Amino acid sequence: MGNRNIKLILAYDGSGYAGWQRLKEEDRKRSVQSVLEETISLVLQEEIKVTGSGRTDKGVHATGQAANFKCHKNIAPQKMLAAINQALPEDIRVIELSEVPMDFHSRKSAAAKTYEYRFEIGEVPSVFLRKYVYAIPEEPDIPAMEKAAELLMGTHDFRAFSSEKREDYDTVRRIDKLLIEPVTVKGCQRESKQIKLLITGNGFLYNMVRIIAGTLLEVGQHKWEAEDINRILDSRRRENAGIKAPPEGLYLREVTFPVEINFKIK
Amino acid sequence: MGNRNIKLILAYDGSGYAGWQRLKEEDRKRSVQSVLEETISLVLQEEIKVTGSGRTDKGVHATGQAANFKCHKNIAPQKMLAAINQALPEDIRVIELSEVPMDFHSRKSAAAKTYEYRFEIGEVPSVFLRKYVYAIPEEPDIPAMEKAAELLMGTHDFRAFSSEKREDYDTVRRIDKLLIEPVTVKGCQRESKQIKLLITGNGFLYNMVRIIAGTLLEVGQHKWEAEDINRILDSRRRENAGIKAPPEGLYLREVTFPVEINFKIK
Repeated sequence: MGNRNIKLILAYDGSGYAGWQRLKEEDRKRSVQSVLEETISLVLQEEIKVTGSGRTDKGVHATGQAANFKCHKNIAPQKMLAAINQALPEDIRVIELSEVPMDFHSRKSAAAKTYEYRFEIGEVPSVFLRKYVYAIPEEPDIPAMEKAAELLMGTHDFRAFSSEKREDYDTVRRIDKLLIEPVTVKGCQRESKQIKLLITGNGFLYNMVRIIAGTLLEVGQHKWEAEDINRILDSRRRENAGIKAPPEGLYLREVTFPVEINFKIK
Repeated sequence: MGNRNIKLILAYDGSGYAGWQRLKEEDRKRSVQSVLEETISLVLQEEIKVTGSGRTDKGVHATGQAANFKCHKNIAPQKMLAAINQALPEDIRVIELSEVPMDFHSRKSAAAKTYEYRFEIGEVPSVFLRKYVYAIPEEPDIPAMEKAAELLMGTHDFRAFSSEKREDYDTVRRIDKLLIEPVTVKGCQRESKQIKLLITGNGFLYNMVRIIAGTLLEVGQHKWEAEDINRILDSRRRENAGIKAPPEGLYLREVTFPVEINFKIK
């Protein structure tokens, strides 16, 4: 398994991948995890298994996915980073690479995660952002969305806001931050009016961020009242929540770890 | 040929196309022009030929390409715009549609064109911008680039800055504006340090903007002195100029027409 534990911070454009998770042998090329494993194995010339902190869906992006792998190869972190980036396809980049204690585990050690969801507002969606935002024609009612977001904060059973099917699975999670911010993105060749949704929590259920984003959007479109959030949470039934917003607007932005584990040993 | 003349302003993501120009029958799907012709013919139920103001290369984008077509169909411009956008693939959008006098010709009537070229600076290029900028690891010397840009302004024989092979072809053009501007693009998921090059002229030779962008970059990398520009222009030889910058950083941004022609008749 190796005597070194290497932590990665990754950015990737999910539009070309079937998601984070390694697939069956015949599909290997198309998951972020399998491309990383093949590439790093080749660079270090030893077999590498990469553990990610979260399984992003098909089409979902990352600007700060955390991952780790064990290895033997004695190369300094900066050299290893450069060699891996050199070999990776252009749509996956290692942003940071550091050596961490052997017991660091990118999923089990994670204390919190932050996701970002991007809506683009406008009759004519940007041709350059179509894989990177969810385009909606009209500006939603942002104060109503904020009111609904407040009701989602804190510790709740989020079963209604997930695609989780297992009855015996613990669906209680804690949301620490849920910000809705209108932004104007300049410089991407055309001014783009967007809404940025930032959500931080101690863990997220399957599809939870996308269903929260979709439900908040529908509150902003007055398909629901903000107060309906409490009723939806209490019902614990997926069919009572709003749509699952499409993957292209979603980014895994940051994974945070307890300070003592995050300490770099080299 | 039709009794109406319709002018379009188009945005497109060139990364999925073999360029603007219609190709041989078997490749039709892949050029912007042929996709527009097929789509508009289908929407208006008559055969449409689309004329563009500039033939963008494979991988080159547009935020303001101008085009026009003749038709018979009696539909109001706003309805026609909506119907065409509905039918087009997501990476081509009609931004504006207006009815113009019958003698308007998007190439022959054009008075000036503006192109934009985008460099991204950084050791780790953005995974989301790889088809939309030319990534360079280090910041070039911008004052040196500006000095060289000044020498390109005005009327010159630009043969050395083009891929034009025909000896008897007039290669004199006029550059009215050539701006180099460092910009920080926020909101595209990560702060991106870029250099924007804006160039306006009365016409551009084949590959002229890309060879100018490449040569200015090399001046900024101190492979040439700014003063070498005069020597390169005088030589009229392509091999004396710098590299041809890759297509992904290039955008056809605006085509301007004399005021009297541009007048909308409806």
